[in-house]
Amino acid sequence: MAVYTHVDDTTLNAFLDRYDVGTAISFKGIAEGVENSNYLLETTGGRFILTLYEKRANPADLPYFLNLMDVLAEGGMPAPLPIHDRKGEALQELAGRPACLISFLSGVSVDHPSADQCASLGAVLADMHRIGEAFGERRANDLSLEGWKKLAAATEARADEVEAGLAAVIRDEIAFLEARWPKGLPTGTIHADLFPDNILFTGNRITGVIDFYFACTDMLAYDIAVCINSWCFDSSHTFVPAKAKRLTEMYDAAKSLSAAEIEALPILCRGAALRFLLTRLYDWLNPVPGAVVRAKDPREYLKKLAFHRSVRDAADYVV
Amino acid sequence: MAVYTHVDDTTLNAFLDRYDVGTAISFKGIAEGVENSNYLLETTGGRFILTLYEKRANPADLPYFLNLMDVLAEGGMPAPLPIHDRKGEALQELAGRPACLISFLSGVSVDHPSADQCASLGAVLADMHRIGEAFGERRANDLSLEGWKKLAAATEARADEVEAGLAAVIRDEIAFLEARWPKGLPTGTIHADLFPDNILFTGNRITGVIDFYFACTDMLAYDIAVCINSWCFDSSHTFVPAKAKRLTEMYDAAKSLSAAEIEALPILCRGAALRFLLTRLYDWLNPVPGAVVRAKDPREYLKKLAFHRSVRDAADYVV
Repeated sequence: MAVYTHVDDTTLNAFLDRYDVGTAISFKGIAEGVENSNYLLETTGGRFILTLYEKRANPADLPYFLNLMDVLAEGGMPAPLPIHDRKGEALQELAGRPACLISFLSGVSVDHPSADQCASLGAVLADMHRIGEAFGERRANDLSLEGWKKLAAATEARADEVEAGLAAVIRDEIAFLEARWPKGLPTGTIHADLFPDNILFTGNRITGVIDFYFACTDMLAYDIAVCINSWCFDSSHTFVPAKAKRLTEMYDAAKSLSAAEIEALPILCRGAALRFLLTRLYDWLNPVPGAVVRAKDPREYLKKLAFHRSVRDAADYVV
Repeated sequence: MAVYTHVDDTTLNAFLDRYDVGTAISFKGIAEGVENSNYLLETTGGRFILTLYEKRANPADLPYFLNLMDVLAEGGMPAPLPIHDRKGEALQELAGRPACLISFLSGVSVDHPSADQCASLGAVLADMHRIGEAFGERRANDLSLEGWKKLAAATEARADEVEAGLAAVIRDEIAFLEARWPKGLPTGTIHADLFPDNILFTGNRITGVIDFYFACTDMLAYDIAVCINSWCFDSSHTFVPAKAKRLTEMYDAAKSLSAAEIEALPILCRGAALRFLLTRLYDWLNPVPGAVVRAKDPREYLKKLAFHRSVRDAADYVV
């Protein structure tokens, strides 16, 4: 949550000369994106976000993310459109870093989404999966089973500092998921990190879906499981069935869920809870020197995982 | 350079209900202001900056700063206008902190101002001093001689870690300035921190003067000395006489400088250089835990101070 790379006015103006977007009217560093530097830019041609990809971004992945945004925005999703320069290039270099200019989207993210907002999310998620079918590129989900095993190994020795018995919970959960992780469900391009802060609302209408930097090819229903975890619990991390049911109902109305996808929801929700438990645990145990913000508490996802372990079947998540 | 206090959508909407500014369309934390949390807010009524004053701001000073902005903006300066709520209040409380909504100003700050931009600054600075005559409140400059002595005492033991002999330079300079610091020059309300990042340009036209949180009552010509230090050196910290001469020429055209003010410029420039040398030195020796950005190098102002010590008279600064 910072601007790591300063872009001065001379550098900015030379950069804008590559495009047909006019000249700068306003330019402010914004506190978004934990891993990149972001600027809100207004030009005589419109409003944009300028992103500079810092060292944690893998440059080899950037064309995948930008091409996906192209496909989604052109397909009618409220996703940022990468702006192409006069030579047709979206991916640029600026201040020694890979960089991209994308369209600005209005809307305000909500901290505590309502059931109506969860319903809106379900419909937009289905749209995204449907429009994403036109996207021909693939990227492995490096935060699925194999990735979880690496994170478990990297955190095992100190996990119990966060909560007694946590290392054993993680070990057992990975063994369980490895034995039962679904195979043969419909796959496609998923967002994989569709938390409330990556959705912009105007009232209950979604006007922005942002931050595609975890997008990958995986089971579509896993994206639903990520959303159930991040949208359908209250502020004390207690599950709110009505929110999940509205979400899956509206998804299903826009893009039918198969019986197998519905049946798999409890285990997919366990996997998604474990994914965020593990990454938060890793970040908690390995704070970035100089970070302004304390890493998020991994125990939120331990509690959510415990809930998903307690459900008997998918009836808790669907109408 | 961060957002220290998170404002969620519910808190924001309740806050906006106090005003006649419509509802939120977009809301982004911005990486501006080292001491406060700032958000760029767009509503159905316009664009605004929402500032939450963090612990380094003295709440007792806030009415002075907001009332000054009122006087300047109403007098025609391109300064932010504090927005008053339906009860007439500009200073609010939000998320447990003093807070204020101010108007948004377009423009881009320049890292390396041109001589033409220095000329624009001179004219706007004179306007600000003239319009500020209507402001009836006073605030002492706590970063003048007495403040410098405190900073010198607080940094003396370790100053030579930054540059050998620095503590002695500071001690000698304070003795010199204390003996000769001007008395009887015209005083008024000054910005006192008018660095290039506090001025927004559209081309060579100034469309914003921001960050009045060091404003105080002091010699008007001291404000010119601060600007000469921060605008009229090149990127290797070498003085550019043409820039200073354009700045003072345009100031004088809009608001006449007296012979005494011109004569005092070399010593006022020494004082201003010492002020930024001392605050940078203090911040360098006392880094904020968790700060993302390294404190600015105090030696820049040691070099500028050496220049001002070398001038024979004000002819270097004026036409």
